Amino acid sequence: MAQIRHALSTKRADDFAAWYQEVISAAGMAEESGVRGCMVIKPWGYGIWERMQRLLDDRIKATSHENCYFPLFIPLSNFEREAAHVEGFAKEMAVVTHHRLIADGKGGLIPDPEAKLEEPLVVRPTSETIFGDAMARWVQSWRDLPLKLNQWANVVRWEMRTRMFLRTSEFLWQEGHTAHADEVEARDHTLTMLEVYRAFAEEDLAMPVIAGEKPENERFPGAVETWSIEAMMQDGKALQAGTSHYLGTNFARASGIQYQDREGTQTFCHTTSWGVSTRMVGGVIMTHGDDDGLRLPPAIAPQQVVILPMLRDDDGDAALIDYCEILRATLADQQVLGENIRVLLDTRPGKAAQKRWDWVRKGAPVIVEVGGRDMQGGVVSLLRRDRLWNTDNGKPAFAAPTRDEAGQSIQAILTDMQTGIFTEAHNRREANITRGVSDFAAVEAHFAASRYPGWVEVQWSKPTGDALEAIVEQLKKHKLTMRNVPIGAAPVDGPCIFTGEAASERVLLAKAY
Amino acid sequence: MAQIRHALSTKRADDFAAWYQEVISAAGMAEESGVRGCMVIKPWGYGIWERMQRLLDDRIKATSHENCYFPLFIPLSNFEREAAHVEGFAKEMAVVTHHRLIADGKGGLIPDPEAKLEEPLVVRPTSETIFGDAMARWVQSWRDLPLKLNQWANVVRWEMRTRMFLRTSEFLWQEGHTAHADEVEARDHTLTMLEVYRAFAEEDLAMPVIAGEKPENERFPGAVETWSIEAMMQDGKALQAGTSHYLGTNFARASGIQYQDREGTQTFCHTTSWGVSTRMVGGVIMTHGDDDGLRLPPAIAPQQVVILPMLRDDDGDAALIDYCEILRATLADQQVLGENIRVLLDTRPGKAAQKRWDWVRKGAPVIVEVGGRDMQGGVVSLLRRDRLWNTDNGKPAFAAPTRDEAGQSIQAILTDMQTGIFTEAHNRREANITRGVSDFAAVEAHFAASRYPGWVEVQWSKPTGDALEAIVEQLKKHKLTMRNVPIGAAPVDGPCIFTGEAASERVLLAKAY
Repeated sequence: MAQIRHALSTKRADDFAAWYQEVISAAGMAEESGVRGCMVIKPWGYGIWERMQRLLDDRIKATSHENCYFPLFIPLSNFEREAAHVEGFAKEMAVVTHHRLIADGKGGLIPDPEAKLEEPLVVRPTSETIFGDAMARWVQSWRDLPLKLNQWANVVRWEMRTRMFLRTSEFLWQEGHTAHADEVEARDHTLTMLEVYRAFAEEDLAMPVIAGEKPENERFPGAVETWSIEAMMQDGKALQAGTSHYLGTNFARASGIQYQDREGTQTFCHTTSWGVSTRMVGGVIMTHGDDDGLRLPPAIAPQQVVILPMLRDDDGDAALIDYCEILRATLADQQVLGENIRVLLDTRPGKAAQKRWDWVRKGAPVIVEVGGRDMQGGVVSLLRRDRLWNTDNGKPAFAAPTRDEAGQSIQAILTDMQTGIFTEAHNRREANITRGVSDFAAVEAHFAASRYPGWVEVQWSKPTGDALEAIVEQLKKHKLTMRNVPIGAAPVDGPCIFTGEAASERVLLAKAY
Repeated sequence: MAQIRHALSTKRADDFAAWYQEVISAAGMAEESGVRGCMVIKPWGYGIWERMQRLLDDRIKATSHENCYFPLFIPLSNFEREAAHVEGFAKEMAVVTHHRLIADGKGGLIPDPEAKLEEPLVVRPTSETIFGDAMARWVQSWRDLPLKLNQWANVVRWEMRTRMFLRTSEFLWQEGHTAHADEVEARDHTLTMLEVYRAFAEEDLAMPVIAGEKPENERFPGAVETWSIEAMMQDGKALQAGTSHYLGTNFARASGIQYQDREGTQTFCHTTSWGVSTRMVGGVIMTHGDDDGLRLPPAIAPQQVVILPMLRDDDGDAALIDYCEILRATLADQQVLGENIRVLLDTRPGKAAQKRWDWVRKGAPVIVEVGGRDMQGGVVSLLRRDRLWNTDNGKPAFAAPTRDEAGQSIQAILTDMQTGIFTEAHNRREANITRGVSDFAAVEAHFAASRYPGWVEVQWSKPTGDALEAIVEQLKKHKLTMRNVPIGAAPVDGPCIFTGEAASERVLLAKAY
């Protein structure tokens, strides 16, 4: 097997965290902004997020939600109404205290002491309390239910340690908020949205996830139940990729969301909330990226096919561009995954080889190069991002279909790639979940034995209170957390690895982002 | 002519401001949030904004811009670099000073004095300075130009007097930021984007606008030139509906946006910025609304056709819904204005007549009612929102096509309505612009003589400095402003109405939002 000269300088196996940063930089996805904890999302990164938005928004609307927009600022007193909620967020909230600047007399500016707000405003870290205010106004009778709302917005949580896409002080997300007449319907809806997230992650992002309930200590502040989808990154760590919360009547009581039921009785609603954020972009990088950069599932690639004519700045260029344009137009008229193929004919200045590697690092699914000799032969040089290298000779694995063949086959290649990279990630994840570990010493040994130990599924008795706290502390020593209790796991058949009592369910243990 | 019982309680002619508020409320578009100066955009209002976003975003991308996302927070020191810019915004900026809350010992919360930021952060009122920082990093050589970026974002300007959609402390917008190699290209691009806004306003929103340059006193803080599109509302006031700024090298110098030109010389870029906001939604209301509520141009209607089966809660309902579903499916397969018809079959509980008027107030372009008798006769009852009343008998002007005819004709009705309501607004505007007024006393008399005096076009000599300031003050006494100097106005042919000197251009005077 020949030596391959990869397109990045850092390999995943050598330094996964440095590799992650290099992909983001080399693919032109984002960079530090100079504002503490905030990033600039560059066009390629934002284009991926726009694709995610479009696909998830369709799924949210298909489940009868309506989009709306609530204020960025939340009065401090709103938070005080739900004790667990405020306790969960108070430590990381950006607070607006003034509404004007004045000269400081030294050539600079300071907040104007005369323009101090009577009540400070919090920049929303999440919007349960302010949606709650409106729901209390909008819900009067059982006829107003269910109320199913969603918003796409920026939120701020003042994080001390940040990492691009995965944990930033400001991030973009959607947050759904619904109110229901009773517990059964609200719990059911919590799981409906979890399933929407699972389908979005697996079908659109090609990112396999395990859906399940979070243990009590990992619940959203103020929730009765929190469910998540968890994805395994290539370093074996878990990424919580989306959460769906059943909030019981906690927020309904705090905000006064009541309705008159069919019998005329005033009754509190049961509410849910659920969110997915730009952290998903980080998940895609760490699920699909390789030592040559990003690899994008076609469904979320801003460009699915990039055609690169090898221009020479001479009279021949026009004919070459015309030759490429026919392929571009042929592809743009075809559909993949329910939408027209997104194809770019890249005629910008620059050397063809350099542009090829730029597109490889960006993860464009198919790259088509066309030189003068290709044109004369009626062919093109076609590179699949998921099968980049010819391992025999260490060279890029170009195919040489005729232009017509390329026009006919790329549709199938893109469809195949969407399922192929899902299967690859799914197989990797399954190979890295260890099951049947029956005592905690074996868990410790497993995580100590390897740099990329994956996940371990254990059985436990689901203790609460101090007993749970002790387990959390025990796990923390090994930097481990309980991810979730998978839906559809095998039945329990032994003792709890923490307490020795009869186990009641299975739970996944992992290091996590 | 029979008496018509309109669907709103306030008429435009009686109290335009109250009418505006009633439309917003009756159409379920927005409401006060309880947070000072901020509104909640409700699903119907947000649906209209989503339509606007989609259509304008397509136009922005078609002119080779890429979307990206920059931080919400801007360090105070960024603003200090451009003197005119900071002076323009300092009085209305929300300032973040703390990043944590703690208990105040009295059961409440206060900003934690231990978590005070070293440098306060401003919530962006606009993003020239932070885009500038990135442009300085991204632009190195002439090959990196032009750099054409756009973002969709929320911004905050602490307004003392707010009005829903038109002036709110937080609003949603897009802001484009571009960097160019020279003045000619940057000025040209400023006008290209002005034209994109004109086409968006006129073709998508059916809102006629006049494009022109703002006089010096109305320039964006830090700009060399500001151009606007101005729309006339039904009360004759002007609404600035979009602006495009040529910034010269002011922001390039402040942020250090330089490039090496082909000769190897370091040169400052010329930059532009341009924005359109949720205020456009207010403009649509005041351009197209009538005494029955909102009227939506089909291009931006979240639902273009609403089918209302007159359900009776009995066994006949299923057949009626089936009958309607065939029309729904027929329409959903057809295209209008380049997109599939957005059609809703509304089977929610509620009385048919009440639902009809709800959809009238919301401005759905076509409402189709179907009762049992319609079904038996193979017909439907079709109401056009732009021709709502039969003035002979004061009743809704229902047509009674067969279901097949409705399926064939609605496409044409929608297309016709899009141009028809544009023409209506255009004619009204032209009828309300007064030209040929040659002295200021006549201007004063014109604006004093009528409640809805429209606009007056005058000739002026474009004075600057103190002379301009005196004119601005003179106009202010009559609550008048100079809107813009229209592109393509007739040549000047007389003296300046302010100074008596030879006029150099024509300028529009109006009361404005």
